[in-house]
Amino acid sequence: MTDSVSKALAHLDARWDEYLGQLVELSRIPSVSAEPSPSAGVNASARKVCDLMTAAGLESCRVIEFPGGHPYVYGEWLHAPGAPTVLLYGHHDVQPPGRPEKWKTPAFEPTVRDDGRLYGRGVVDDKAGVMVHVAACASYLQSGGKLPVNVKFIVEGEEETGSSSLEAFLREYREQLAADVIVLTDTSNYDAGIPSITYALRGIVGIRVEVQALDHPVHSGMWGGPVPDPVIALCKAIGDLVNDEGILNLPVWADVRPLAIKDREALTALPFSEKQFREQVGLVEGATLIGDQRMPVWGRVWRQPAVTVLAFEARPFEGSTNQIIESARARISVRIVPDQDPQKIQDAMVRHFEMRVPWGLKVTVEREHAASWWMTDPKGPAFEAASRAMTKAFDHECVFIGCGGSIPFVDPFAKVLGGVPALLMGLEDPPCNAHSENESLNIDDWKKGTRAAVYLYDELSRLPR
Amino acid sequence: MTDSVSKALAHLDARWDEYLGQLVELSRIPSVSAEPSPSAGVNASARKVCDLMTAAGLESCRVIEFPGGHPYVYGEWLHAPGAPTVLLYGHHDVQPPGRPEKWKTPAFEPTVRDDGRLYGRGVVDDKAGVMVHVAACASYLQSGGKLPVNVKFIVEGEEETGSSSLEAFLREYREQLAADVIVLTDTSNYDAGIPSITYALRGIVGIRVEVQALDHPVHSGMWGGPVPDPVIALCKAIGDLVNDEGILNLPVWADVRPLAIKDREALTALPFSEKQFREQVGLVEGATLIGDQRMPVWGRVWRQPAVTVLAFEARPFEGSTNQIIESARARISVRIVPDQDPQKIQDAMVRHFEMRVPWGLKVTVEREHAASWWMTDPKGPAFEAASRAMTKAFDHECVFIGCGGSIPFVDPFAKVLGGVPALLMGLEDPPCNAHSENESLNIDDWKKGTRAAVYLYDELSRLPR
Repeated sequence: MTDSVSKALAHLDARWDEYLGQLVELSRIPSVSAEPSPSAGVNASARKVCDLMTAAGLESCRVIEFPGGHPYVYGEWLHAPGAPTVLLYGHHDVQPPGRPEKWKTPAFEPTVRDDGRLYGRGVVDDKAGVMVHVAACASYLQSGGKLPVNVKFIVEGEEETGSSSLEAFLREYREQLAADVIVLTDTSNYDAGIPSITYALRGIVGIRVEVQALDHPVHSGMWGGPVPDPVIALCKAIGDLVNDEGILNLPVWADVRPLAIKDREALTALPFSEKQFREQVGLVEGATLIGDQRMPVWGRVWRQPAVTVLAFEARPFEGSTNQIIESARARISVRIVPDQDPQKIQDAMVRHFEMRVPWGLKVTVEREHAASWWMTDPKGPAFEAASRAMTKAFDHECVFIGCGGSIPFVDPFAKVLGGVPALLMGLEDPPCNAHSENESLNIDDWKKGTRAAVYLYDELSRLPR
Repeated sequence: MTDSVSKALAHLDARWDEYLGQLVELSRIPSVSAEPSPSAGVNASARKVCDLMTAAGLESCRVIEFPGGHPYVYGEWLHAPGAPTVLLYGHHDVQPPGRPEKWKTPAFEPTVRDDGRLYGRGVVDDKAGVMVHVAACASYLQSGGKLPVNVKFIVEGEEETGSSSLEAFLREYREQLAADVIVLTDTSNYDAGIPSITYALRGIVGIRVEVQALDHPVHSGMWGGPVPDPVIALCKAIGDLVNDEGILNLPVWADVRPLAIKDREALTALPFSEKQFREQVGLVEGATLIGDQRMPVWGRVWRQPAVTVLAFEARPFEGSTNQIIESARARISVRIVPDQDPQKIQDAMVRHFEMRVPWGLKVTVEREHAASWWMTDPKGPAFEAASRAMTKAFDHECVFIGCGGSIPFVDPFAKVLGGVPALLMGLEDPPCNAHSENESLNIDDWKKGTRAAVYLYDELSRLPR
């Protein structure tokens, strides 16, 4: 271990409470990017992140605004001539908190519990990821006055709503962002204490579909029989989205890249307990794990498409009466994998509803987001450096995993930077409930992840250029 | 025409504005029986009906309360010794108003429009029906001091929520309610200006079904694939409730009584315009009239079972995120016909969801109401009397029709009174929007219906006993 690394780690060890306090403060800010811009919460968290970067010792820290979008934050330290440049990425926006009554402690009152976890909206996705690099940079800059690499640090403000300003951002800052390697801390660890590098992300495409039968609701007794029920019609088409085995029933499988033998071997080598999987996801007793049974369970999540009904609107129970209602609607997303084309999948979804809604009812489909999958071959010196750093910090061998989620930022970003390696490092563990109520962070893994970043900057300083 | 009938009709003609004013006043009261008891609205409308009965000249008028139920109103006039006794029925409770933004004028601010209709919640279902008999009784009592028949007048306060106190009411008042004929004014006319007597009502059975997959919502990316989506599972089972032709897909058809030849002839003889039917129901262009294509359209409504999804709850669009939610639920009703057994149909609905929800998810079914169908053979002197009365008042031949709706009161009531004839006379016409927003009454038909009641009391006075 070099002297600067030891000093940085010692700095961290003396200041965990301080950084945890900063994470709590940052997580108090309700930076929900689903709110229309300008959002007071997202603006406040952008300013807060900018202040934290500045306090850490980063330079040229600033908030970058886009018309109609949510602000990004940028900071840098570029005084390591000859050393590689590392682009760090995180995001400061969060998902909406969901249903307040489901939170054991309020979403925006971050609370440490006896189980060693910090609970609150955004704590793990992705404010802890931001704090990993704030703290790791500070540990070097404040203990030794310098970083072993050049650093450019981008913290996005609209990751949870599909990064709508990303294109504008990349167009404007492309040259300024040039780097030798990208480090993103917004993914998962395979399990608590198991450091993981993510080599594949699914993409996501979404639609909103409305089925209309009538121009006004009518009495279900006086008219029921010949008059089609739009709820049943929509249910028929949604039910047809998967077959009896729960496999996506759209003609989109031809483009799914088969699992390479080495990927299947790696998957099979990972420790897997179906019992634990069921517990972590909270599956009801007796339920089946659906989908392609020839594929290991995590392979279905990482390397196969899946459909989810995000929302369904008909009449709610409250106030419902004996009526055939006029229309019903749903929001539906499909997670996509290599080599599926987002546009083609969205087309297939649109066609499905146009064809499968019965009885000549009026079908209106609105396209939502369409973000591509991303996959890399995790080979070469950057991945080796990352693997060593993670293994040291966690005292556990680093594993390479896929991720069923999507980070719309990764694919266009990696492309714009000329295909440089992208290292996706995780803090989310299976029980973390990202996007749900009672989101939480494994505090011990967050400390290890921060130590891993310290090791990583050092490892990357020796990257052949 | 007897002298007393002419005087009663002259009385009415001089006072239409007054009775319309009373109907407007009564309809201002939000007597929504879906509210928990005691409901200020339902109590106020009960008192108002009681006052109207008293003012009409009826005697022993009183509000009858049931623990946990909504109040009935009773009034009588029993000074026609030797003449038959007629039991009049109506209800003063109403459906919830629905969505305020859909009402062109507020639900509880009854408004007469240029189209000759009165708009407001409950105006046609069934406050106009109540006012028919209030005004018809008043016309005799105030013009000649007596009615040609004995009258017992029951106005229910919980028809729209399934008449939960009916059993208690019948147990307590059975003997006091003894009558030779029942007249209910809570059904339809086949069309505006076409007087109609309803000889068949469908029954209704309902369930609430919940499908649970998880104990908390999870990220659709991190888990989607092997983890079943409860919304899709519920959609599959709901979609299976009808086949591709829109025919109810439960094993409940064996008990459906085939249409007698004379009933089919009567059905076919009724004027029917598919174009008008489509307009009245507000069907979108190009939609199919679903169901058994060998059966005339109204035969599907009156004499065949039909299913409706009354409510569906998953996540609403607002605030929905990329999650597999833990559970989804629906309220579903089936309208039933002779000779289907309500219990058996409800059992079939429960079994359907227990069997057809896939992937071993947890299915919880709660039984709602189960009310029987009712059918009579509209023959004999009482029906002849009613037909003559209606034909005279409307100056149009009276037709005999079925009704797809349910009046839970009719079947047990007719049974308890020893199978006396039940005359179901209509005021609801196809565009009346009962149970929907913008409910309305055809004012001209309401006047004709009131005149028909005047004729009817006279006709029934000559009923052989």
